[in-house]
Amino acid sequence: MAMPPSTYPRRLLPLFLGLFQGALLLFFALFVTYDEPSAQDTSLVANQVYSTFPFFQDIQVMLVVGLGLLLTFLPRYGFSALTHNFLLLNFSMQWALVLQGLLHHFHHGQIHLDLHKLLLSVFAAVTVLISVGAILGRASPCQLLVMATCEIPLYLASEWVIVTCLGVQDVGGTITIHIFSCYFGLGVSKALFRATQQSLHPKETPTTSSDLMSVVGTLILWVFWPSFVAVLCQPGDAQHRAILNTLLAMSASAITTVVASGLLDRDGKLSPGHVQNGSLAGGVAIGVLADMAVPPAAALALGSLSAVLCVLGFRFLTPLLARKLTLHDQCGIHNLHGLPGILGAAASVVAVLLSPAGGNASEAVLEGQWGSRGAGGRALCQAAGLAVAVAASLLAGLLTGSALRLPGLARPPERLCFEDSLYFKIHDQAESPGPDCSAEEGALALKEQV
Amino acid sequence: MAMPPSTYPRRLLPLFLGLFQGALLLFFALFVTYDEPSAQDTSLVANQVYSTFPFFQDIQVMLVVGLGLLLTFLPRYGFSALTHNFLLLNFSMQWALVLQGLLHHFHHGQIHLDLHKLLLSVFAAVTVLISVGAILGRASPCQLLVMATCEIPLYLASEWVIVTCLGVQDVGGTITIHIFSCYFGLGVSKALFRATQQSLHPKETPTTSSDLMSVVGTLILWVFWPSFVAVLCQPGDAQHRAILNTLLAMSASAITTVVASGLLDRDGKLSPGHVQNGSLAGGVAIGVLADMAVPPAAALALGSLSAVLCVLGFRFLTPLLARKLTLHDQCGIHNLHGLPGILGAAASVVAVLLSPAGGNASEAVLEGQWGSRGAGGRALCQAAGLAVAVAASLLAGLLTGSALRLPGLARPPERLCFEDSLYFKIHDQAESPGPDCSAEEGALALKEQV
Amino acid sequence: MAMPPSTYPRRLLPLFLGLFQGALLLFFALFVTYDEPSAQDTSLVANQVYSTFPFFQDIQVMLVVGLGLLLTFLPRYGFSALTHNFLLLNFSMQWALVLQGLLHHFHHGQIHLDLHKLLLSVFAAVTVLISVGAILGRASPCQLLVMATCEIPLYLASEWVIVTCLGVQDVGGTITIHIFSCYFGLGVSKALFRATQQSLHPKETPTTSSDLMSVVGTLILWVFWPSFVAVLCQPGDAQHRAILNTLLAMSASAITTVVASGLLDRDGKLSPGHVQNGSLAGGVAIGVLADMAVPPAAALALGSLSAVLCVLGFRFLTPLLARKLTLHDQCGIHNLHGLPGILGAAASVVAVLLSPAGGNASEAVLEGQWGSRGAGGRALCQAAGLAVAVAASLLAGLLTGSALRLPGLARPPERLCFEDSLYFKIHDQAESPGPDCSAEEGALALKEQV
Repeated sequence: MAMPPSTYPRRLLPLFLGLFQGALLLFFALFVTYDEPSAQDTSLVANQVYSTFPFFQDIQVMLVVGLGLLLTFLPRYGFSALTHNFLLLNFSMQWALVLQGLLHHFHHGQIHLDLHKLLLSVFAAVTVLISVGAILGRASPCQLLVMATCEIPLYLASEWVIVTCLGVQDVGGTITIHIFSCYFGLGVSKALFRATQQSLHPKETPTTSSDLMSVVGTLILWVFWPSFVAVLCQPGDAQHRAILNTLLAMSASAITTVVASGLLDRDGKLSPGHVQNGSLAGGVAIGVLADMAVPPAAALALGSLSAVLCVLGFRFLTPLLARKLTLHDQCGIHNLHGLPGILGAAASVVAVLLSPAGGNASEAVLEGQWGSRGAGGRALCQAAGLAVAVAASLLAGLLTGSALRLPGLARPPERLCFEDSLYFKIHDQAESPGPDCSAEEGALALKEQV
Repeated sequence: MAMPPSTYPRRLLPLFLGLFQGALLLFFALFVTYDEPSAQDTSLVANQVYSTFPFFQDIQVMLVVGLGLLLTFLPRYGFSALTHNFLLLNFSMQWALVLQGLLHHFHHGQIHLDLHKLLLSVFAAVTVLISVGAILGRASPCQLLVMATCEIPLYLASEWVIVTCLGVQDVGGTITIHIFSCYFGLGVSKALFRATQQSLHPKETPTTSSDLMSVVGTLILWVFWPSFVAVLCQPGDAQHRAILNTLLAMSASAITTVVASGLLDRDGKLSPGHVQNGSLAGGVAIGVLADMAVPPAAALALGSLSAVLCVLGFRFLTPLLARKLTLHDQCGIHNLHGLPGILGAAASVVAVLLSPAGGNASEAVLEGQWGSRGAGGRALCQAAGLAVAVAASLLAGLLTGSALRLPGLARPPERLCFEDSLYFKIHDQAESPGPDCSAEEGALALKEQV
Repeated sequence: MAMPPSTYPRRLLPLFLGLFQGALLLFFALFVTYDEPSAQDTSLVANQVYSTFPFFQDIQVMLVVGLGLLLTFLPRYGFSALTHNFLLLNFSMQWALVLQGLLHHFHHGQIHLDLHKLLLSVFAAVTVLISVGAILGRASPCQLLVMATCEIPLYLASEWVIVTCLGVQDVGGTITIHIFSCYFGLGVSKALFRATQQSLHPKETPTTSSDLMSVVGTLILWVFWPSFVAVLCQPGDAQHRAILNTLLAMSASAITTVVASGLLDRDGKLSPGHVQNGSLAGGVAIGVLADMAVPPAAALALGSLSAVLCVLGFRFLTPLLARKLTLHDQCGIHNLHGLPGILGAAASVVAVLLSPAGGNASEAVLEGQWGSRGAGGRALCQAAGLAVAVAASLLAGLLTGSALRLPGLARPPERLCFEDSLYFKIHDQAESPGPDCSAEEGALALKEQV
């Protein structure tokens, strides 16, 4: 605990990453190729590029810029949050590319790479970026990388069970991505911090300018969320409907967040944290049924309800979980991804039950698979998918979190949590000392920089 | 005036929004559906999505991130500016969706929702976001919502008269959106503040970092503006030309703003406010004739002239209007939307006069409507559209502004204007007190936070 | 040197720009038109717009927002960096439009403007924006404009020699844009500052918040870089491969930068400057062979290697060049554009040698041109292109830099370098004085504002 900052072990991160990148390079050299040019028609490939690439870029902006900025609400940890998020995305994406290739696309000793497979790897990486939110600022980058190393294969396994075996419909990743990553992150947090009650750290309180940057991140995520939900839809009506449903749900979320946050506060003031998270809750919830034949009003209702749940979660559930279960959730991922995700999954059960014809325009395609199941059976599958996601992710997270307690992974001492200067040669931390920075810590930070 | 911040009535906002969202949900449940899947060909829908959605996303980025950031130049009001802009966009868009549906798309008791109708609603919402600029920081969020409630139907009515009845060509919304919203906002400001001379508030002066954020907003708007102008054009030549004309006009604006700002200042220094606004003036002006067959030089000339007008407006007209008419224009919307808008409308009159064949590649389509009118008649229509927009918006704005004086709408007292902590639980306002924050106000802000 | 700030000559900038914009307007009025509507098929034009415009917008975001923010790492010069970058883009793009039109597209006294030509002009402008990095903060805006005036024709000439005469393949502009602009900028810097050793200026050190803004710029560039590389590719396989190669190279860069930066530092801390630049190095290197038939592993290897080179360059080469050659490189453009560019060019030589069939899917089209040359001849051409780019740009830069020493161009005195308030009416420079701002300078800045 009294480890001086100068002896904090920082070499592990570059060594770990160097080994990983080297091994990955070897793997690519041996097994990964592009499609043969002659294998596909040129105009077909061009159309695929034009129909996928803009969505892909939107999603990259969401993850790299939007989510990164959302995490900069910790005023002295913004640089770390942004950079580690970026690093984890790249690491997890490459790792998922390898594992997905081995699992699904390994033919005659070769993996053929294309934009669609890269996109699926980016989707896998999203789970890591979400789970990090539970332990942001109190875990070392090495711990985050080990977490990513474990989470990606576990996600792929859970996604395979849920989508391929159970046949769950989840075009926007509500169950497979949001719920899985949320409970995985909470499991990690529980196992990592165990029964330690985390008291409020002096550097944990956002400042006006860090809250402003964070809300810019929210807005970027909000704008591009429809692309995330719709990219894997069938082109045509289903994709069109997914875009509209997501837009409606997120619009209702934005308004309802203000309603809930304002009514809950004694003075009627809005909490920046509610705005930053609640506005996105609708996007989480709608994902699972965005392309189903639900009426527009359902999207609005789902968006509103999920925003209410999110704000209530921040106000009551997070403190309760911290007190009763000593469960630490730094960014409130349970409120943004867990509660709205469960709501969306439940809504998808109802939606499948109520739509006898199938609920999806591309239903005819699935006829073979679904022919034998009625609406009841399919609703059961959705519910089973939710249960599998929650149970598997919690268990996997608890195990992973225990592994993160290995002493070599260099969890930062409490005093140096939420501090950019622990990992980066930051020049002028004294710039905005704020009232919460004791003289001792300031001196420490200055000494650090030399 | 001496109302203590703790008793400032904040409950009205969530109550108002909650009722609105509930009523809207009911309306959607009763009347709004998506198109039947069988009603349209799948590949046709897919093509519509691919040709409209990227433009739509660009416009969302402009409004949510670009315009939001542009408004953060008030250093202690950035969080409010960004969040209220976002809230107003969502509120106005949903409200416009209802009204447009009732007015134009109500068939057999149903409104069929699609991306195009959502886009038109977003266009309607833009008027509100522009008008807000006249009273930013001195009006409560409730006042802004009431303003939006009034402005959307008045905009729809005015747009109907101008485009449908008069047949005005205005693909980029110069007359229908920019001019209307500008004079509406000024009318509101006049009726709301009446003859009160607004002295310079100590929190009104931008800081370097708030000016930097604001110029980032300008740059985002600048980059995506061609999408805003071109999205409703006929695909093909007209759209291509609209994109090029807008790019040229905005490029000329960017350069000419520096010329005008530098030559007007005694020391030759550039004003951040000029750069933030003047660079966009060309986009406002070109909208009305972007798809007409004007030569590229005309787009450049229009961009340059509108930037000059905008800078001159900031330097001379805004102070004059404030002194002579006690007209308060917080963000200078008259310089960015009013003057360049009128210039563009005047240019469109000339463009229509000089192009006997019609001035638009899709002219043949309009043959039936236009067959009987010569160039002179059509030029007259453009002029009439301008006149209608100015007159209707001023009158509507004055009436709306009077309604905003209702005591219940909680206009903030002068002392608490331009202050995030009035509406948000901002943690650390003391972070950047600046030289203009008296000790008394600092103490107030601190007490507020507790 | 003792020139008081109030007498600093600032009128030159608006006069220069005013004359330029006026002359350009005249040129456009005389010679530039759009294509006749009847000249092309409507759906063909529409397809061109849909296939080019999204890429074009991505590139605009990169240059205006991404590169602009990347340059804001100088804490008291952010507003100038962002605004001058924007101004130079517009100036250079218009200037390139004229010159390109005269050189390549002047038929029957007319230049037909379209989106593709505008895009090529934007590419030309990129060279200026890169070169500026060598002298950022120590050169006046007038000097930058004169530099742009010289660089654009020299770039067009060098690009003509390299691509048209030598037939070098360089779809992402590694040789023609990055290497050319890097050595041009270094030449300018050498000739401008000659043997003056630039000591560390007190305002040169980034703060945490300026580093944060700068890394946001990096992330925006990182996300959209594939669009920059792929926009000019043949649609279909070549473009698809270019996107994938760029994504892989940049992902490897992001990870390897952390490896190299962490291992090189005594304490294992990462340097913000390394992250900001190294993450992009792969994009520079991959450009020249992105559409060739290289295996995915080659893209990864190239990305990793270029990041290592970039970090090593910052750590060892830049200080060495400054000491031995008194060569000043403010933003380290040699590490981001020079070294990775040379690596990429060398890799393209190898790639061409190893692929007998040509290395490019669109090879058949070039048959006529290439029929007579074997792989060896073509590899020689790639190498010759690299040599021409380096030699021509260095010579051109040295000459241009000498021209910038003309006394009228108002190079700012050392004391006022890196200072927004020299060029802008910045209101509150005192906001973040930081520990490195002496009381004297603060007083100066305050007096400046009045």
